[in-house]
Amino acid sequence: MRILVVGASGTIGKAVVEALQGVHSVEIIRASRKNSDVTVDISSTESIKAMFGQVGKIDALISTAGSTHFGLVEEMTPEQNQFTVNNKLLGQINLVLLGLNYIRDKGSITLTTGITMDDPLVTGASAAMASGGIAAFVKSAAIEMPRGIRINTVSPNVLEESFEKYGSLFVGYEPVSSKRVSLAYKKSIYGAQTGQCYRVY
Amino acid sequence: MRILVVGASGTIGKAVVEALQGVHSVEIIRASRKNSDVTVDISSTESIKAMFGQVGKIDALISTAGSTHFGLVEEMTPEQNQFTVNNKLLGQINLVLLGLNYIRDKGSITLTTGITMDDPLVTGASAAMASGGIAAFVKSAAIEMPRGIRINTVSPNVLEESFEKYGSLFVGYEPVSSKRVSLAYKKSIYGAQTGQCYRVY
Repeated sequence: MRILVVGASGTIGKAVVEALQGVHSVEIIRASRKNSDVTVDISSTESIKAMFGQVGKIDALISTAGSTHFGLVEEMTPEQNQFTVNNKLLGQINLVLLGLNYIRDKGSITLTTGITMDDPLVTGASAAMASGGIAAFVKSAAIEMPRGIRINTVSPNVLEESFEKYGSLFVGYEPVSSKRVSLAYKKSIYGAQTGQCYRVY
Repeated sequence: MRILVVGASGTIGKAVVEALQGVHSVEIIRASRKNSDVTVDISSTESIKAMFGQVGKIDALISTAGSTHFGLVEEMTPEQNQFTVNNKLLGQINLVLLGLNYIRDKGSITLTTGITMDDPLVTGASAAMASGGIAAFVKSAAIEMPRGIRINTVSPNVLEESFEKYGSLFVGYEPVSSKRVSLAYKKSIYGAQTGQCYRVY
C-alpha cells in the first residue's frame, strides 16, 4: 500500500507517519513545504499537480496540512481570511480535485479539520470557516466518490505537543496527544467508513 | 430600523423583503446584481465597499445572496469550485468583514447557508462546502462580535418556488415555502439569539 502524507513535517503529520510505518507492505511518501520526500505548497494548484505527477498512483492520501489566519473578526481583512481559504480550505480540497485520478480503486482520502468549528474560540473564526467548509465538502463528496474510494476528515482538539505554544488561546480545552489523533487517520485508511468526521476531542 | 437585504431580487430575498416591509419604522434597502435600490456584486470586495459607502449605517444586514457551482467532484475543477468560494462563501463573509463598521450597536447580521451541508446530494459538494464554511464562521464570529451585534445564519431546504427548476436534484426532499423561510430571518433580526443556524427543513 502506497500512502501519501501531505503535511508530513508537521506535528500531526509526523505522528501519522510514525503510526503508519514499520509495516512491510506499506510505502509512505512524505510531502510538505520542505524537509520531506516531495516538496509541495498546497496553496498552489500547479504545485499540487507537480506533486501528484512526481508521486504517481497511491492507495491513500492523507492531508494534515493547511495554515490558517488567527485574528479578531472585527480586525480581519478579506486578504487575511483569503490566506486561510488558499491554504487550509482550498489547499486540501484541491488535493481531492486534482488527486482523485491518482488514487487507486478502493483507496481513501483523509483531510484535516479542527475543533474550532465545533467549539469556537476568540480569533478562531477564519480557521473555523475552513474546517466547517472541509467537513461539509467531505460529507457531500463521499456519496459520489468513484471506484469505491472513501473520504473522511479528522478533527483534532489542540495537541499536547502544541499546548505550550497555543495553550493561552485554548484555555479549558483538553489537549490530546498526536499519537491519539494519529489513530483516527489509521481508522480512516484501514476502516470501511466514508463521509465521516472523526472528532478527537 | 434600517435593514439592508443583499440578494433582494432572488426568491428568498423577495420573500424576506415582503415579510419585513409594511412596518412604519422599518426602512428596507434592497441590494443585488440588478433591479434593486443598490447594485452589488458580492464576489468583488470593491463592489461591497462601494455598496456600504452608498448605503451608510444600518441596523440589520441580511444576505440571501451567493451563487454556487453544482457538479460532480470527479469532474470538478479548482476553478469551478473557486466560483462558489468567491460568491456564496467569501461573498457573504466579506459582507461581514467589510460591513461590520456600518452596523449600529445591537444590530444584527444574518447570512444564508443551505440544507446540502447537512443532507448531501450528488453534485452538491461545492455548495455544501460554502454552507458549512459560513455556518462555522458565524458560530465562531458570534462570540466576539463587538457592540452587542448578533450574527446568525438561515439554512433553507429547497424552496417550493424553485422545486420545478431544482426538483430533479432534490428528490425526496420536502420543499419549504419562501414565506416560511423568511420567518427565520425575522427571528434573527428581532430575536436576541446569536451564533445560531436556523434550519428550515
